[in-house]
Amino acid sequence: MFDEMETIKEHRSIRKYTDQPVSDELLSRLLTEAERTQTMGNLQLYSVIVTRDSEMKHRLAPAHLHQPMVESAPVVLTICADFRRTSIWADNRKAQPGYDNLLSFMNAATDALLFTQTFCCLAEENGLGYCFLGTTIYSPEQIIDTLRLPRLVMPVATLTLGWPDEQPPLTDRLPLKAIVHNETYYDYTPAAIDEFYAEKEALEVNRHFCELNNKETLAQVYTDIRYTRKDNERMSATFLDALRRQGFI
Amino acid sequence: MFDEMETIKEHRSIRKYTDQPVSDELLSRLLTEAERTQTMGNLQLYSVIVTRDSEMKHRLAPAHLHQPMVESAPVVLTICADFRRTSIWADNRKAQPGYDNLLSFMNAATDALLFTQTFCCLAEENGLGYCFLGTTIYSPEQIIDTLRLPRLVMPVATLTLGWPDEQPPLTDRLPLKAIVHNETYYDYTPAAIDEFYAEKEALEVNRHFCELNNKETLAQVYTDIRYTRKDNERMSATFLDALRRQGFI
Repeated sequence: MFDEMETIKEHRSIRKYTDQPVSDELLSRLLTEAERTQTMGNLQLYSVIVTRDSEMKHRLAPAHLHQPMVESAPVVLTICADFRRTSIWADNRKAQPGYDNLLSFMNAATDALLFTQTFCCLAEENGLGYCFLGTTIYSPEQIIDTLRLPRLVMPVATLTLGWPDEQPPLTDRLPLKAIVHNETYYDYTPAAIDEFYAEKEALEVNRHFCELNNKETLAQVYTDIRYTRKDNERMSATFLDALRRQGFI
Repeated sequence: MFDEMETIKEHRSIRKYTDQPVSDELLSRLLTEAERTQTMGNLQLYSVIVTRDSEMKHRLAPAHLHQPMVESAPVVLTICADFRRTSIWADNRKAQPGYDNLLSFMNAATDALLFTQTFCCLAEENGLGYCFLGTTIYSPEQIIDTLRLPRLVMPVATLTLGWPDEQPPLTDRLPLKAIVHNETYYDYTPAAIDEFYAEKEALEVNRHFCELNNKETLAQVYTDIRYTRKDNERMSATFLDALRRQGFI
């Protein structure tokens, strides 16, 4: 049995980069290879906005909660669900596109995220480091304005990219049986939760995280501080507004 | 410059599989490696339902428009956006989860799709073939019922998986410049559309596709037959119903 793509076993998010530039040639090669990713009806329902300009990075930073790698990375990629290109193509070919709806957004977001992850795997296999910014869907309007995204284009993922200048420790993962269900969904009993989360909760880094935040349990750090109901509900409304503005609902 | 993950250049969807089984050992190894994929707050907001049972495949088939590989593949994987495990964990740890909203669904769907694509890359690197079924979000209720997916679990991707028993031709892709925008979104002029779609429209297979469907343009095959406004609007409503049923809106 051969065993390829070894780099995934060593994956960590890289937030510090050397001064070495990422060449257009390398970036184009990796993006071209990522284009081989399966895509709905071979329509390629995504676009990639490449940010190299410092001023543009500076303008994107607030949308990503000013995480420093947005400004320090040599390249920032914003990957968008894009039904615009396909719709313009149809308009120009005596066809009536019907892609201004939620299902079409989900189809395009799926295409965009699969493409993104193939690119991520390729980047690591070629020695690059990246950080995936989940903040992209928190404040989409700021990104839409900065990158001038028109109707039927919605940002769904951002990557900061460069040559690694750090090697952070690997983070923990749940045991496989915590995420796999055979034939039907096996619901989580309290005993199963205890078993699956034991290692995570026992980690020194996570115990420290609780102390630092003055919380009794690690789960409270998530629910009360990192990902709160209030923030989630506010951002759900913002996200819906952005989908409406971009013409997907 | 090294150049790894060569298999992506040869990616094609595989719909016919040999009789050779996919061992539990191999499947578990690949899923474990795919767990290294970046994930929001290290929460791993996904679950995988493994279908090997013939009767279960038979019951899933209608949700995937009876595409034959659902029943003929040795393994079917349904990957779900899952905020349930995290929410039960929180409930059991004196924490109040607030993940019954659209933003949380998008966060979990993102996690699930990135995980899915890492798995896809790993599967191909290990000689397996797969087909990604975009139909998963067309009729989610049937999948939810069959796999008994509880609240805060929503199917977002399905893979049929096995050892390849066909080698279909590579499909075309748009030129890279059709999907890449530098600094800001460069909107598509009619001339750009003509240039970017010329190769696709000239392909014998696509010209044949038009004739077969009695359409003047390839775009009309998409808008009038494959992905119609009527279907998209109906499935948008169905998708919203499923999100509501699963407690995400």
